[in-house]
Amino acid sequence: MTEEKSIMDYETVALDDTEHALVIIDQTKLPGRTELLHLKTQKEIWVAINTLAVRGAPAIGDAAAIGIYLAAREIETDDYEEFLRRFREAKAYLDSSRPTAVNLSWALNRMEQVVLQAKGKPLAEIKQMLHDEAVKIKDEDIWICSKIGEYGLTLVKKGDGLLTHCNAGQLATAKYGTATAPMYLGHQKGYGFHVFCDETRPQLQGARLTSYELSASGLDVTLICDNMASSVMKNGWVQAVFVGCDRVAANGDAANKIGTSGVAILAKYYGIPFYVCAPTSTIDFATPTGAGIKIEQRPPEEVTEMWYKERMAPKGIKVYNPAFDVTDHSLITAIVTEYGIARAPYDVSLQEIRRKCGR
Amino acid sequence: MTEEKSIMDYETVALDDTEHALVIIDQTKLPGRTELLHLKTQKEIWVAINTLAVRGAPAIGDAAAIGIYLAAREIETDDYEEFLRRFREAKAYLDSSRPTAVNLSWALNRMEQVVLQAKGKPLAEIKQMLHDEAVKIKDEDIWICSKIGEYGLTLVKKGDGLLTHCNAGQLATAKYGTATAPMYLGHQKGYGFHVFCDETRPQLQGARLTSYELSASGLDVTLICDNMASSVMKNGWVQAVFVGCDRVAANGDAANKIGTSGVAILAKYYGIPFYVCAPTSTIDFATPTGAGIKIEQRPPEEVTEMWYKERMAPKGIKVYNPAFDVTDHSLITAIVTEYGIARAPYDVSLQEIRRKCGR
Repeated sequence: MTEEKSIMDYETVALDDTEHALVIIDQTKLPGRTELLHLKTQKEIWVAINTLAVRGAPAIGDAAAIGIYLAAREIETDDYEEFLRRFREAKAYLDSSRPTAVNLSWALNRMEQVVLQAKGKPLAEIKQMLHDEAVKIKDEDIWICSKIGEYGLTLVKKGDGLLTHCNAGQLATAKYGTATAPMYLGHQKGYGFHVFCDETRPQLQGARLTSYELSASGLDVTLICDNMASSVMKNGWVQAVFVGCDRVAANGDAANKIGTSGVAILAKYYGIPFYVCAPTSTIDFATPTGAGIKIEQRPPEEVTEMWYKERMAPKGIKVYNPAFDVTDHSLITAIVTEYGIARAPYDVSLQEIRRKCGR
Repeated sequence: MTEEKSIMDYETVALDDTEHALVIIDQTKLPGRTELLHLKTQKEIWVAINTLAVRGAPAIGDAAAIGIYLAAREIETDDYEEFLRRFREAKAYLDSSRPTAVNLSWALNRMEQVVLQAKGKPLAEIKQMLHDEAVKIKDEDIWICSKIGEYGLTLVKKGDGLLTHCNAGQLATAKYGTATAPMYLGHQKGYGFHVFCDETRPQLQGARLTSYELSASGLDVTLICDNMASSVMKNGWVQAVFVGCDRVAANGDAANKIGTSGVAILAKYYGIPFYVCAPTSTIDFATPTGAGIKIEQRPPEEVTEMWYKERMAPKGIKVYNPAFDVTDHSLITAIVTEYGIARAPYDVSLQEIRRKCGR
């Protein structure tokens, strides 16, 4: 008799060194089917990121690091400059797969630094160093999420109701998640949280992924439509909101899944603390405010057709479908990083975090 | 060659005197298919209201009035007391089809008054009076929406962006709609509005009905997911929000489709006026505040399965699925009725409206 595997038994992102492939869970199929994708070419990896088969800012960074290593591995030359040129071509291509999450370019830049600093070494050795750096980025991601969990847990108490939007969970990272890390850690420690998951239209990451992974881990989860958050908060069921983020500007403005800014405004209205969980890799010190963050626009069919038996809107209807929005720093109670908790004024506190992480 | 009929060529609710049936457009099939339902029995009418084949507070009132007339018509007795007893049985049954919209009981009570005031007359005459009252309720609904359109239009200017939630349109009334009445009237007068429709999960009335009827009438419509309203408002694209309502308490608290209170909080945050369009039949002077309004809870499958090719959430997941929420009167800029525009303090202004309508 075989026991049925849970989603928690799989790794979100993995490097298979035998077949030289990036192995991911195809998140577009969850929760109905758990299918692993073995991606070997740059094109396959680009498509997987672009179509959200792998998504979530940290997981995108992990996948991109493995992806660029696999691309570098295939470059057949003995000439360093030629290698660097082709490495940068692959890097630019992978970097174009999605525009908003800064972890993508952060991970690719970090991999490029390996190549630049190793100039003069044999290319076989450089390739091995890239392999090790990709593995390290993923291992660090696990450590980062674990630290975010510890810091986040200091912000809540036993029995709290917690609300989250989209999926900043294990499926968005290598392990634990960012917004979910305090939930998983609290659950281990018997905190007895009640978690509310916004379903998160149009792609339903909250319904398909977050409610799935949290309930599979034994947490008490209630799924709601995005427009029910106000009602749940008014009922007094939510003591804190935890969300992830795709890019934090230097002033604390945070881009995250579309709808996040609305949840933050509701939380402010109802007097509920609103926490953004952000690995320091998500903080973009080169972008002064949220106004400088590019927001990805996605196809109208996600809203009008996707997932449905029948078309759910009239033919030809105009659709506005931004994938993200920017939450103003004035709405954020605290930003939880692996190096501690930043509070307003963020232009000061995020620089302190920056010093701690040595970036 | 037959011209294709538009949704605007059909009546939302109609009484067919030849076959003695309530004729409605099956709104659960829109926008994919336009199917008319011919409902003859109380059971059929109860099911149509309960499953949202006909929905929207005013249209529910119109349908219930026709429904109770059809039920009364079938009562075979010469005894007034027996007739009244069976009339009240049918009334209680229809009244149980949905709990939140007060127009349902308002219309049924108004029909009962006809029976009570006609005591002593021949029952055939009473049945004819019920027929005429049902027709009158529907005709008044058209006049009411037209007046709401005129008053509402005084609140906006040419070129404005208007946002609405759910469907308080023609498909929710006999004609023009409530929240949409100023849009239709402005469109006739060349106002050039840009209308944003929240899709309105879980039943997608905004995507399926509002964006459909407005675009079929030639208005400029953009469909968004509920969680995109904050982004659209932040972009400066919305100058006013218009919504309908299912029950207004005496203090101005307004119950409407789930998510409305969230839109009102966003509007307040962004400094955008928030207007509730309410026929006086929707004002429940017997309910002092929104806390006294019963909120219908609907099945979890609307959130986890409905409309989908595959189940969109894990099996057994707990769901909170309230059909409505209450918007606090402090968030409402004005309540637009057929007897004029009420502003805070609503406990005073709504009583003035009450005097004008003679209730």
